[in-house]
Amino acid sequence: MTGNRDENTRLQRVIEGIAARMAGETERGKVRPGDDDSRLGAFGIAVQTADGALLQAGDHAERFPIQSISKVFALTIALERAGEELWRRVGREPSGDPYNSIIDLERHEGMPRNPFINPGALVVADVLLAHEDVREGVPEPVRARIAQLLGITDRAAWPPCEPDILDSLETGHVNRALAHLTKSYGNLKHEIEQVMAVYVHQCAVRLNCAELARAGRYLMLERIGMATDSAQAVRLARRINALMLTCGQYDGSGEFAYRVGLPAKSGVSGGILAIVPNHASIAVWSPGLDESGNSALGTRALACLAEEMDWSVFGASGLPDERL
Amino acid sequence: MTGNRDENTRLQRVIEGIAARMAGETERGKVRPGDDDSRLGAFGIAVQTADGALLQAGDHAERFPIQSISKVFALTIALERAGEELWRRVGREPSGDPYNSIIDLERHEGMPRNPFINPGALVVADVLLAHEDVREGVPEPVRARIAQLLGITDRAAWPPCEPDILDSLETGHVNRALAHLTKSYGNLKHEIEQVMAVYVHQCAVRLNCAELARAGRYLMLERIGMATDSAQAVRLARRINALMLTCGQYDGSGEFAYRVGLPAKSGVSGGILAIVPNHASIAVWSPGLDESGNSALGTRALACLAEEMDWSVFGASGLPDERL
Amino acid sequence: MTGNRDENTRLQRVIEGIAARMAGETERGKVRPGDDDSRLGAFGIAVQTADGALLQAGDHAERFPIQSISKVFALTIALERAGEELWRRVGREPSGDPYNSIIDLERHEGMPRNPFINPGALVVADVLLAHEDVREGVPEPVRARIAQLLGITDRAAWPPCEPDILDSLETGHVNRALAHLTKSYGNLKHEIEQVMAVYVHQCAVRLNCAELARAGRYLMLERIGMATDSAQAVRLARRINALMLTCGQYDGSGEFAYRVGLPAKSGVSGGILAIVPNHASIAVWSPGLDESGNSALGTRALACLAEEMDWSVFGASGLPDERL
Amino acid sequence: MTGNRDENTRLQRVIEGIAARMAGETERGKVRPGDDDSRLGAFGIAVQTADGALLQAGDHAERFPIQSISKVFALTIALERAGEELWRRVGREPSGDPYNSIIDLERHEGMPRNPFINPGALVVADVLLAHEDVREGVPEPVRARIAQLLGITDRAAWPPCEPDILDSLETGHVNRALAHLTKSYGNLKHEIEQVMAVYVHQCAVRLNCAELARAGRYLMLERIGMATDSAQAVRLARRINALMLTCGQYDGSGEFAYRVGLPAKSGVSGGILAIVPNHASIAVWSPGLDESGNSALGTRALACLAEEMDWSVFGASGLPDERL
Repeated sequence: MTGNRDENTRLQRVIEGIAARMAGETERGKVRPGDDDSRLGAFGIAVQTADGALLQAGDHAERFPIQSISKVFALTIALERAGEELWRRVGREPSGDPYNSIIDLERHEGMPRNPFINPGALVVADVLLAHEDVREGVPEPVRARIAQLLGITDRAAWPPCEPDILDSLETGHVNRALAHLTKSYGNLKHEIEQVMAVYVHQCAVRLNCAELARAGRYLMLERIGMATDSAQAVRLARRINALMLTCGQYDGSGEFAYRVGLPAKSGVSGGILAIVPNHASIAVWSPGLDESGNSALGTRALACLAEEMDWSVFGASGLPDERL
Repeated sequence: MTGNRDENTRLQRVIEGIAARMAGETERGKVRPGDDDSRLGAFGIAVQTADGALLQAGDHAERFPIQSISKVFALTIALERAGEELWRRVGREPSGDPYNSIIDLERHEGMPRNPFINPGALVVADVLLAHEDVREGVPEPVRARIAQLLGITDRAAWPPCEPDILDSLETGHVNRALAHLTKSYGNLKHEIEQVMAVYVHQCAVRLNCAELARAGRYLMLERIGMATDSAQAVRLARRINALMLTCGQYDGSGEFAYRVGLPAKSGVSGGILAIVPNHASIAVWSPGLDESGNSALGTRALACLAEEMDWSVFGASGLPDERL
Repeated sequence: MTGNRDENTRLQRVIEGIAARMAGETERGKVRPGDDDSRLGAFGIAVQTADGALLQAGDHAERFPIQSISKVFALTIALERAGEELWRRVGREPSGDPYNSIIDLERHEGMPRNPFINPGALVVADVLLAHEDVREGVPEPVRARIAQLLGITDRAAWPPCEPDILDSLETGHVNRALAHLTKSYGNLKHEIEQVMAVYVHQCAVRLNCAELARAGRYLMLERIGMATDSAQAVRLARRINALMLTCGQYDGSGEFAYRVGLPAKSGVSGGILAIVPNHASIAVWSPGLDESGNSALGTRALACLAEEMDWSVFGASGLPDERL
Repeated sequence: MTGNRDENTRLQRVIEGIAARMAGETERGKVRPGDDDSRLGAFGIAVQTADGALLQAGDHAERFPIQSISKVFALTIALERAGEELWRRVGREPSGDPYNSIIDLERHEGMPRNPFINPGALVVADVLLAHEDVREGVPEPVRARIAQLLGITDRAAWPPCEPDILDSLETGHVNRALAHLTKSYGNLKHEIEQVMAVYVHQCAVRLNCAELARAGRYLMLERIGMATDSAQAVRLARRINALMLTCGQYDGSGEFAYRVGLPAKSGVSGGILAIVPNHASIAVWSPGLDESGNSALGTRALACLAEEMDWSVFGASGLPDERL
């Protein structure tokens, strides 16, 4: 207990130091062309630890649309429902191409390379719809399960769909191109606009760092929030962590694994969810993006945090802090 | 101590059970067209633990050319010598294409996607040559460092180069095509035949499972065998583990991470080296390959072992064995 | 005059011989999966000569949707309207990929390789809409100009749009994927459904061989039917012939140029329009397609006809008939 | 006769006018990086007419290595020897990729798209070697047949091989990469260095415009210089013209067909051979290249000449000169 309390005291100091350094950074990345850049100066961080502490620093209380980070939660639900059958419709390999590349999709005849590139996320959204009574918009059971997984207990707090945020002209047309091509190969069962509605909806969910870090608890193998039993839940969390590590940062996934060494998923609004299995769930947010579309400061902050805390899935150093 | 002894007793039982099951498997994969298939029935496994025990089962004493597994050791030496500068010449991203695809190389103007696809390994070999007095064949310092890293103490035991093993007509021409294309972009400094000599030489090194498992000790973050100091060695080992996890199994890397959850590197002769950071270095060998060119039984055996020992970089379950 | 009459008598004999041979062919190609194959036994041919004769044989009077052959006429109108500016939005190079490949479109950032692959035809349709008061469906002036160019004098004869023919599930989704991707790059000005309406409409025009051969007269450099003056019309016809020769038969264009040696455009319903500059406009029709999607018998018939009549843009032999 | 004399007088006037205009052009293109640019100011033209006249202007007497134009003559010999069997080893489709792209070769499993891209030319060179007693270098019968086809009667005039001209570092490595990849698919029978020797040799032949225009006579369907009988020779010439039209100008072939309308083959040294079937064989030369690697002024000159002489395989206008 005391150990944890000391550890958490140190962790709080570390994230406050990081938040302070990030506030002073001048190279903050860029938002996508056309996006609002008024919050380029923002940086928030929150860490949920396995012992139940929630530590925060910077602009941790400011909400942002989680965008592609939602793909992690949507995939979890799809795997709970469809099981390993899902992998007949979407691959598990890193893509080597940008998140919205249509080339790969044609080369592999409508089978997206993994569930975190956009066509893969559309297939996942199609699976979410599979057993629902679909009329229009997003079916209530889908909304409810996403809300439950994200820990949104107050249904009234469920954010209204804000398609204008992400359905800018380009994104909308590229995603519809991906959807039509996927459907041409028979790999979408529902109407394209229904699938798009689920996808847009999940992307538009707004959370702050604290809420996002808490939502990631099941991925550090706490057995909470999962519909499945414990053994299945553990297996599922491990596998989603594997996908986050290999495919979670678009075409910067390899470099992120190399530099940071943690499973993580980024979103185009500048958020990143990262997992230290058995130890912590971390959320960072800063809107400026690097060339691969990942939060520039968020990536830097996670690299610092992992180094200072000796966190890496690729081994604990066992060295005194000052040595690393 | 007792704990370790008990643990090792259990581990010995587990790998013997796996070896017995693998002996009975009928679906054993295939060797590459033209390769010798007389040892399709073979299966060997060895586990080097962090506490110094070396456990073995099956055909663990039979030597095989380590082929592409050598890319791990060559990369280690190249990173010791060139440092992060290496990444100006080779990427760190999974490729999404087969190991010998030339398409990616042209698309990225002579910069291989990662050091484990063949053109990347050729650039690494070029770096190994960089500071040597190159006359012909493989320079003695390069041989010596590889031997040291592999723990080959008896220099006489250094295997003679057996280029006939891997320089079959197809492989030779594809690799030379990759080398010429890389050189056309200025990304090889030495003569192609010199680079090929180093590459062929490292691939032809013959080890058995026990020797290979021992050679992988530095990757579980034991601080031995590295030329660098401890902190650097830890960082280096973590980063090589990251590359093994994201890129180590050709275009089956994503699925391997998903199913097994350990950093690993395979070779076309049927060997796989897998790492449980801080805990174990594992070598398996069985010549039959799956569709991605990885040992079919080796992959299955590692999946069983990881499951039974609750080994995964993506989290320990903490559940009683019988639950997983 | 007598010369022409003798020549035409011989030509009539030749096409009747071809029609008879084609009736007896057993290898007739295939219709696309799902398409009606009840007319696989049909073969029609018509030749409009420069001296005004219209010669016919086989099932020349049976109408079929002209499908992609309409791209020739749509391109003509677009070039009349936009002039060489058109080539800022669509290329003039053969594609090397199938007609509906989306890969090329992404590689060239939304600029279709040529106006005869589907995305190019969509850009052309967008140009046709450019100066019209667009409300819904196909604007009357566009209909009127297509009708005029095709020589459909009786407006009542204008065929109703039959989108069901071509808008089968696959085609529709692939074309919409192409349209959305093109629009994402800003290369479509109008709403996708408006562009699709023009495209579907032009494809659904139904002509028989005689009507189609007559519609092609302006391409043999007769100065009729063009909105432009004579010199421009000649230049335009030559250029469209050039595009037909290099890009008119999907990814079989090179082989068609090699075997037949005439500018031609095929459609997926089995029609082909071929031009002998200064001499003849030829239409053939037979529904079975070869692997590239061109009429199998139509191609064979044109090869025979070209050989027997010593017709090739690549040189007249001057040899007695029996020699060739 | 008089008609021809008048026509030739006019043609002489036209090419002199073009040569004068080209001398004054300031935008002259660029040589490849590293190539000699001392002759950027040069422009030569020669026209061999079907009635036997040879008309010349500008720097028509200056010799240059014919480079890729040699692919036309090599293909002719290969087709004489291997007949249509050749097309089992090389395609006839335009490539859509640059002349030295390796991507296409891998996509099509070692079958080059056409005989005018470099891997296709290597397969053709391999065919030239097929029936020869190969020891080293270029077999005498191959040299002799190339010399005969090019009309090099004085064997002493046969140029020594100048590999340094084209075997610059990049070209050499890219071509060897293409050769090794082609051989890896079993599509080269001879040793790579033998094939390269033939290829380098044919590229290094030096001709001036007059010699090149005369060498092209058989392509305007004069029945001279061919080993085959007349009917075969005509068919062969037509087919080579077809390939020149669809594939002769690298990835600028479509635009060249559109703008100029004549079969032509360019070389990287700035030469172009163009054919007006039944009428003329034209050679132009100016070292500055456009973006596709074709002579910038050569292309412009051919466009002017074709326009002024009303030459196009896509139809004669029949209009008075001043109208076009």
